[in-house]
Amino acid sequence: MTIAEVISVGTEMLLGDILNSNAQYLAKELAKLGIAHYYQSTVGDNPERLSRTIAIAAERANLIIFTGGLGPTPDDLTTETIAQTFGVELIEDAAVIEDIANKFKRRGRHMTDSNRKQAQRPLGSDILPNPIGTAPGIIWEPKPNVLILTFPGVPTEMKRMWQETAVPLLRSKGWASETIISRTLRFWGVSESSLAERVSEYLEQSNPTVAPYANKGEVKLRISAKAKTETEAIALISPVEAQLRAIGGIDCYGADEDSMGSVVGQLLRHRVQTLSVAESCTGGGIGQLLTTAPGSSDYFFGGIISYDNQVKISLLGVNPVLLETDGAVSAAVAEQMAVGVRDLLGTDWGLSVTGIAGPGGSSDTKPVGLVYVGVAGPYGTTAQAFQFGDRGRDWIRLVTIGTALDLLRRQLIQGS
Amino acid sequence: MTIAEVISVGTEMLLGDILNSNAQYLAKELAKLGIAHYYQSTVGDNPERLSRTIAIAAERANLIIFTGGLGPTPDDLTTETIAQTFGVELIEDAAVIEDIANKFKRRGRHMTDSNRKQAQRPLGSDILPNPIGTAPGIIWEPKPNVLILTFPGVPTEMKRMWQETAVPLLRSKGWASETIISRTLRFWGVSESSLAERVSEYLEQSNPTVAPYANKGEVKLRISAKAKTETEAIALISPVEAQLRAIGGIDCYGADEDSMGSVVGQLLRHRVQTLSVAESCTGGGIGQLLTTAPGSSDYFFGGIISYDNQVKISLLGVNPVLLETDGAVSAAVAEQMAVGVRDLLGTDWGLSVTGIAGPGGSSDTKPVGLVYVGVAGPYGTTAQAFQFGDRGRDWIRLVTIGTALDLLRRQLIQGS
Repeated sequence: MTIAEVISVGTEMLLGDILNSNAQYLAKELAKLGIAHYYQSTVGDNPERLSRTIAIAAERANLIIFTGGLGPTPDDLTTETIAQTFGVELIEDAAVIEDIANKFKRRGRHMTDSNRKQAQRPLGSDILPNPIGTAPGIIWEPKPNVLILTFPGVPTEMKRMWQETAVPLLRSKGWASETIISRTLRFWGVSESSLAERVSEYLEQSNPTVAPYANKGEVKLRISAKAKTETEAIALISPVEAQLRAIGGIDCYGADEDSMGSVVGQLLRHRVQTLSVAESCTGGGIGQLLTTAPGSSDYFFGGIISYDNQVKISLLGVNPVLLETDGAVSAAVAEQMAVGVRDLLGTDWGLSVTGIAGPGGSSDTKPVGLVYVGVAGPYGTTAQAFQFGDRGRDWIRLVTIGTALDLLRRQLIQGS
Repeated sequence: MTIAEVISVGTEMLLGDILNSNAQYLAKELAKLGIAHYYQSTVGDNPERLSRTIAIAAERANLIIFTGGLGPTPDDLTTETIAQTFGVELIEDAAVIEDIANKFKRRGRHMTDSNRKQAQRPLGSDILPNPIGTAPGIIWEPKPNVLILTFPGVPTEMKRMWQETAVPLLRSKGWASETIISRTLRFWGVSESSLAERVSEYLEQSNPTVAPYANKGEVKLRISAKAKTETEAIALISPVEAQLRAIGGIDCYGADEDSMGSVVGQLLRHRVQTLSVAESCTGGGIGQLLTTAPGSSDYFFGGIISYDNQVKISLLGVNPVLLETDGAVSAAVAEQMAVGVRDLLGTDWGLSVTGIAGPGGSSDTKPVGLVYVGVAGPYGTTAQAFQFGDRGRDWIRLVTIGTALDLLRRQLIQGS
């Protein structure tokens, strides 16, 4: 039976400077593969203490996963300490030197001597390739029945190396005997408690389990099934997913990696329609989310960041009298912004937001958290008010982005 | 010398269901108190493995801090496992029983038998009061020179118990005699390795220590000093900070909570100048970052998200012939975009980006990761090419935002 142990290396964690999200990621991944995982350790950039941690792990685990300490600076000691602990010398990997030099060249920079250190590996080990950063990891069996994998601490690099190399390796060894598959349904426009009540009977069941989560305006239901194979797990999930989607109706906007931006993009692409945005309090956040998807230029033309009122007047054609009488944060202005951007950019749809993200700018009648969303489209123009409450500028801006796109999503689905 | 170790207990962490933010909180707190902290361990709700973890910690630390496993359910085993490990019997604390019963009464509920378990403590230990939840912790010296403190896993309860009881206790013991203060300098436009070489002599020194970190285009130097008082620690940091800032020069853009958006905002505010942006591949991300700061409307007027080429032509006045000959991703187009948005919105500065975020849209001469930044300002118009390499769409877009604002920052500082 394979027993994994995760060792996170870095004094910054012992000082509390960074949150160890890598350990959580690896824990989830090991659970998905059905590999037992009993201990996690965090240790600083200290060779003696790291070496003792390695010795303890090698006694109680046969898959030791390291993150951190692979950088070019003198306090990055993971590779050499692992080698020392098992009494094996380090060699310089010529192919890695070349790879690092090429990466620097492509960025128009020169490789420094300190980067040579990143090409060292214990004799007898293999390289765990890092497609995006300079520091590769190692794959090494220093003694029978102990496999070591090392990863950089940078989460994006670690995750890609884990998925591209470690997972296939562990599967090929037959260590990933069971699998846990999860599917997350995403909802917008409902509260966690009301959704939990609508699906209460499902929250009690096992295999698949159903659990609700709420995060920044969004509510999720995670369906998790455990089985010998992925196919069996999916067969357990599918009927429950269908029932939950039926209960959720239009409030369920997607699943797993879907984002509100990608879902709206798919709907626009399907209808061969185009969109432009006029953003005030979100400052460009709707455009940024929409353009996260590659190929979004097919349906997203662009927009106006009308942070200043003068921009609303001169570019979007908002009536200056209306700005005086109704104020910039009003239904009428939201409508004119949506129409204005749609006409200016010549798109099928125009989406606008204007609101008070705070902490300043509020009044008795217009509190922090008041946001208007305008939609101008083939079926007419509407504006809707939302009152998010004073939950902080960042929260209000983020929820405004999701809410605006959700309003458009509902019109894209329902309009005909 | 006091050496602390943090043990987080809970199978949910080994399954990746929750992020261990308690360990980070305690790490920060221990650093603030100047208590050395060399190891953190995470172990599941398994008495045998928890007991082994305790035995290892008792050999290398004299302050062992536990979080989790104090609840009423059968898998909550921390207190009894600690007692067993040191061979001491559990007793029921009558005062705790009464306290728990009262707490239930106030919530209109009845105490269950399983809650009695939460009133147990090893003979000879003291109670660590929990003012908000049912589960108290313990304060126990099972053997000379080993002090154990236990806390529930619920962060709000743990933090309050830590502040109200543990911190005064550690101070009264004279263990918290020191304090560690950190200051982080932020750099842009340099690689971690080249900055590390420029400041190499500082990386070797102790008190204050200097350590480099790199994250998404940014490089940081953390200066940490240990002293009897905060004032003494700051006195140790200040001269080193001044020297590092001098070495970094204009590459050092800020410190601690500064962001590139807030720094550029401060520079514009100071000069009473205004900015507008024309964004292509970032889709609104520069505007979003700039408007994160409350009051940014004082200097940021807005911008054009010119995702589609037609928008570049019709709104920004980019020459359509130039789009054909040079392509949308070119220095000439970046310049025209910057001038166009500056003139259209009537601001002092115009900042533009156009690039290939990928995965599609590249050619032999224009690879993924090629980005042009244009700046139009009071001193003229410039454009600069950057080659970030194919490190993924999200990474390229994020680093483009920082790089564009950094280019403007340099002109705001240097221009006169």
